[in-house]
Parts: sequence; structure tokens; C-alpha cells
Amino acid sequence: MVGWCQRSPARGALGKWRAATPRATGERPLLRRLPAALRAAPPPAARPAPDIRPGPASRPAGNMALREAASGGCSLHWPRVLLFGDSITQFSFQQGGWGASLADRLVRKCDVLNRGFSGYNTRWAKIILPRIIRKGNSLDSPVAVTIFFGANDSALKDENPKQHIPLAEYAANLKSMVWYLQRAGVPGSRVVLITPPPLWEAAWEQECLLQGCRLNRLNSVVGEYAGACSQVAQDCGVDVLDLWTLMQKDTQDFSSYLSDGLHLSPKGNEFLFSHLWPLIEKKVSSLPLLLPYWRDVAEAKPELSLLGDGDH
Amino acid sequence: MVGWCQRSPARGALGKWRAATPRATGERPLLRRLPAALRAAPPPAARPAPDIRPGPASRPAGNMALREAASGGCSLHWPRVLLFGDSITQFSFQQGGWGASLADRLVRKCDVLNRGFSGYNTRWAKIILPRIIRKGNSLDSPVAVTIFFGANDSALKDENPKQHIPLAEYAANLKSMVWYLQRAGVPGSRVVLITPPPLWEAAWEQECLLQGCRLNRLNSVVGEYAGACSQVAQDCGVDVLDLWTLMQKDTQDFSSYLSDGLHLSPKGNEFLFSHLWPLIEKKVSSLPLLLPYWRDVAEAKPELSLLGDGDH
Repeated sequence: MVGWCQRSPARGALGKWRAATPRATGERPLLRRLPAALRAAPPPAARPAPDIRPGPASRPAGNMALREAASGGCSLHWPRVLLFGDSITQFSFQQGGWGASLADRLVRKCDVLNRGFSGYNTRWAKIILPRIIRKGNSLDSPVAVTIFFGANDSALKDENPKQHIPLAEYAANLKSMVWYLQRAGVPGSRVVLITPPPLWEAAWEQECLLQGCRLNRLNSVVGEYAGACSQVAQDCGVDVLDLWTLMQKDTQDFSSYLSDGLHLSPKGNEFLFSHLWPLIEKKVSSLPLLLPYWRDVAEAKPELSLLGDGDH
Repeated sequence: MVGWCQRSPARGALGKWRAATPRATGERPLLRRLPAALRAAPPPAARPAPDIRPGPASRPAGNMALREAASGGCSLHWPRVLLFGDSITQFSFQQGGWGASLADRLVRKCDVLNRGFSGYNTRWAKIILPRIIRKGNSLDSPVAVTIFFGANDSALKDENPKQHIPLAEYAANLKSMVWYLQRAGVPGSRVVLITPPPLWEAAWEQECLLQGCRLNRLNSVVGEYAGACSQVAQDCGVDVLDLWTLMQKDTQDFSSYLSDGLHLSPKGNEFLFSHLWPLIEKKVSSLPLLLPYWRDVAEAKPELSLLGDGDH
């Protein structure tokens, strides 16, 4: 919320207002629809000539405050959530994407960083992971990591040998990555494995035909990889989001979750986010809101509120 | 794109395919609508029992490869774009938000970090900026920074003295921030100032009344602050996106750009992104795609492709 008027409502009303403010709800703006009468635009105002008197031209007095702030306040540590995966991760900030939804939900608490690599399988992912998360810097250690591969690994060997990874190696690669993270200071309690979503073969076959090749994946095979992923999670004691199973639960029509038979549609993004959020939330629940809520900033001496102890 | 079949089309077709692939276009999935016949879902497949032989239970052989990768490959430097502002920035990862659109457009090139602080004005922003961007670490220096304040500063003093900032101080604060960034290693060529959007008074007044107060902003006053912001940009030699003017250009109806008279609607987010992108693009145009396109990974020895020179 940008802000309201100064006059406070009565104490009782204030309590209610504070409880309903964006502070408690993620600080969302009010997006409710307005009466039609209000939707008529006022005529654009001509901009008045600016009346700026910014003080000395070379260095305004404010720079002193900046220097004081730099010396008096601690650098803010901004925690990170890492999304590591293939194209379904790389595309997760498209409109309505599950990555963007996470970033929005976690605003002022941590960054959500996209480490999705379109087309990659776990053999390649395992090689690059140490370039993405280094050992030895606990401050850089993410508070949560999603590992979301399998859609490429499960490609049929005969039709797509470049991306295909044998089932046993897929499982071993996932285990390697979980173990690497642990050695890099990311305990298993911060890790979520995500299985590939089910494949809608009819639609994906159309995509393949458009590229001059035959259907190169089968849903039943993807299911084997999803099972292996779940088994690895169980073996390693980490969370798993079994998308393949959840999207087919109770024989539901999962076609609407996919845009091209393989990647997620807007509805699929929403589905993934709704199931992933509870797993992420428990890993980040202790994170504070970074820097104070604007109503809590001391008006006369804002530095007292804003140059805090490093976290908030 | 997760991936296709192995068989390559003919050379001519390959060139065409490569040009049209996600590599060139931002690697977007194909979201076109599919024929109705394809939308009928296949019956969910029962998941086959996983057949996993991941090697030794304690430490799979893959860990050796991970250690080799960690020692042989350089840590990837992931550039950053920082969005510094008030609630219009903080909410920019909501569905269709301009921040999420930037992050999607820049995926595999840099992170887009939300440093939006709902309700903040430039007096407070100036104090916290050194806690967000420290001097002395050129690697951490962002490749682009947006500074987007004014919607709170321009609140009417009598109705909202807590957030109100006098016009001259607003301009001085913006200058201070640009100068601080320069001393912190972020030259003006990487900075974009954004003026507050126009205020749709009728709608915002309704919001104010709902909170028990009177209209606490005026569009004409916001226009003065927008003018001051543009003047600062000119004085400092940095880019400016004058949203206040652009949204009212040619006496257009700007009401649809706002959700509550002050914050951006989905259409307003799209408008902002479409005008901001050209300014950001020229600052990040030299950034490489991080890590190789999947078709370029050497199949027999993927390490050769993936353990690169530190950047890509």
C-alpha cells in the first residue's frame, strides 16, 4: 500500500484496520472492482511547472545522511530461495507462473531466484550445480531449493538420446545433488524435489510432428521417473511434490494443466504453486519482514527505525 | 523448451528452426491453442513400479563428478537488476506485474530483485539505500537500477504529514540516491528514474473514505513531483520514464491503468513494462545467456560445455 491519510481511526477501528492491512496479508493493493461511475477518467491535468530548490548544486545536504546511514546501519542480508530445474522452471516467471507467484508471496522476506535451464537433464544439472551454489558461504546458503528435473531425462532413448538419461542414473543424479547441497550447507530440510508432470501424449505428439520427429516421450515412462524421484526423496529424507501423481489423482482430466502436452498452462502453474507453497512456507516461516512496516517508521527520527540490526 | 527428438531436420530447415527456437526468442514454450480433439484427456496411466538401481547406497559415483565440477568450473556470476521503490515496486511480481515480466524477459541473463517498500517515501529510501547496495564489491554492483518513488512523497501535507515530503526535498533525495549509487560503483548510465503514475482522484478518494479519511493526494500535485523527478534525471544525466505524462498523453483515459486510483492495474503493469523494457534492454544487451543452450552441450563430454570460463 502506498499510504493513507494521517488521521487515525478510533483505537478499535485501528486494530481492525491493522489486522486487515497488507502487513498481515502480504501487503496487497486493493484490487476490487470500482463502481462504474468511478471508472470514468478525469481529464488529464496539465503538469504544473516544477518548483525545485534542491539546495547546493554540487552536493546536497542529504548526502551526509547517506554517509551516516552507510556507517550506522548494517547491510541487509536478503535470504534466497533457489528454483533449480529445466524449462518448466525457466519459464516459471511467465504470466501467472509459479516462480513469480512464489516471489510475490515472499516479497520483503527473500528473493526467489530462477535457475531453470531449458532442455537440461540431471546429468548436466549435476555438473553445473556447484557453479550455482558454492560451499563455504553460509550467508549465501539458500533457505529453500527446489530440484525439478525429469521431463528431459525421461525422453525415449531411441527418439531422443541426447536428453535421455537412464532411470537408475536419474535417481543417482538426484541423490548426488541432494548430497552436494548438504555438503554445501543446505540441509535436506530445505530441499524440495518435484517430479515431472504427466505427459499429455496427443498434444506433445503434435509438437513433435511439427518439428519433423516422432513422439519422443510416453506418460507411462515419465511415471517411472516420477516414482524414482519420490523414492529418492524418501531415501534422502527430503520433501517431494509428486506432480505426476497429483495431477492425475482421481482420474482427473490433467490436459488443462499443460500448454503443449509437456509444459505447464496457466492452470498448471496455479496447481503447482498451490501444492508447492505449503512446503516452501514451512521452510521460510521464521523469516522476518525486511525493514519495518511504513506505519512503524518513527516520523521524527526515521533513522532509528531504518538503521536496524542487520535483518530488519 | 524441454526438448525435442533427436533426428535433425534438413540443414535448411534446421537453420529456420534454430532461428525460431526459444534460444532466440527468450525460450518460450509453445502456448498456441491445440485442436479440440487433442484437449480430451487420456486416461491417467497407473504409475509403473520404479526400477531404480542408484549404485552404492552411501555415496553414488556421481559425487565424484560433482567434486570435479566444483573444482574445475568457475562459480557463475549472475548479474542483478534492482527495482527500488515503494508499493508499486513491491507489488510488481503480482500476476502480470512489470517486475515479473522483466524477470521473465531476462531469464538466464540476470536476476531481477524486488526492493520495493510499501508506503516508503524518498526520505526513508535515502536512509536505507546504503543497506541495500554496499560500496566496494564490483561483482555485486547491479547492471541496472530503477528508482521509483513519489506516490507517497506527493501526499498532501495536511492530510498525510507522515508520508509527505516537500517537493524540493524529494528532488534532493532523488539526487542523493543517484550520487550514492555512483559512489557505490553504479554509474548513471545504469539508472532509470520512474515518475509516479497519475492519480485517479475519484477512485482514490473512495479508498480514502473507506479508511475514514479525506482524499489525501491530488493529481496536479503528483504532476509537480513527476516534473521534479524528470528534472533530476536531466540534471544527473540518467534515464527517466515519465509515467505521469505518458499515461495522460493525448488526453487518453488513464483510469484503466490503475486498480484503485493509485496502484497499477494489469493494463497499467503492461504499460509500464512496455515503456521500461527499451530502457533496461540497452543496459543489459551485452549480457550473455548463462550456460549453453541445451542443443550446444557436448553429448559425449558435457563437462566441456558446462564448466566454462565463469560467465557462460
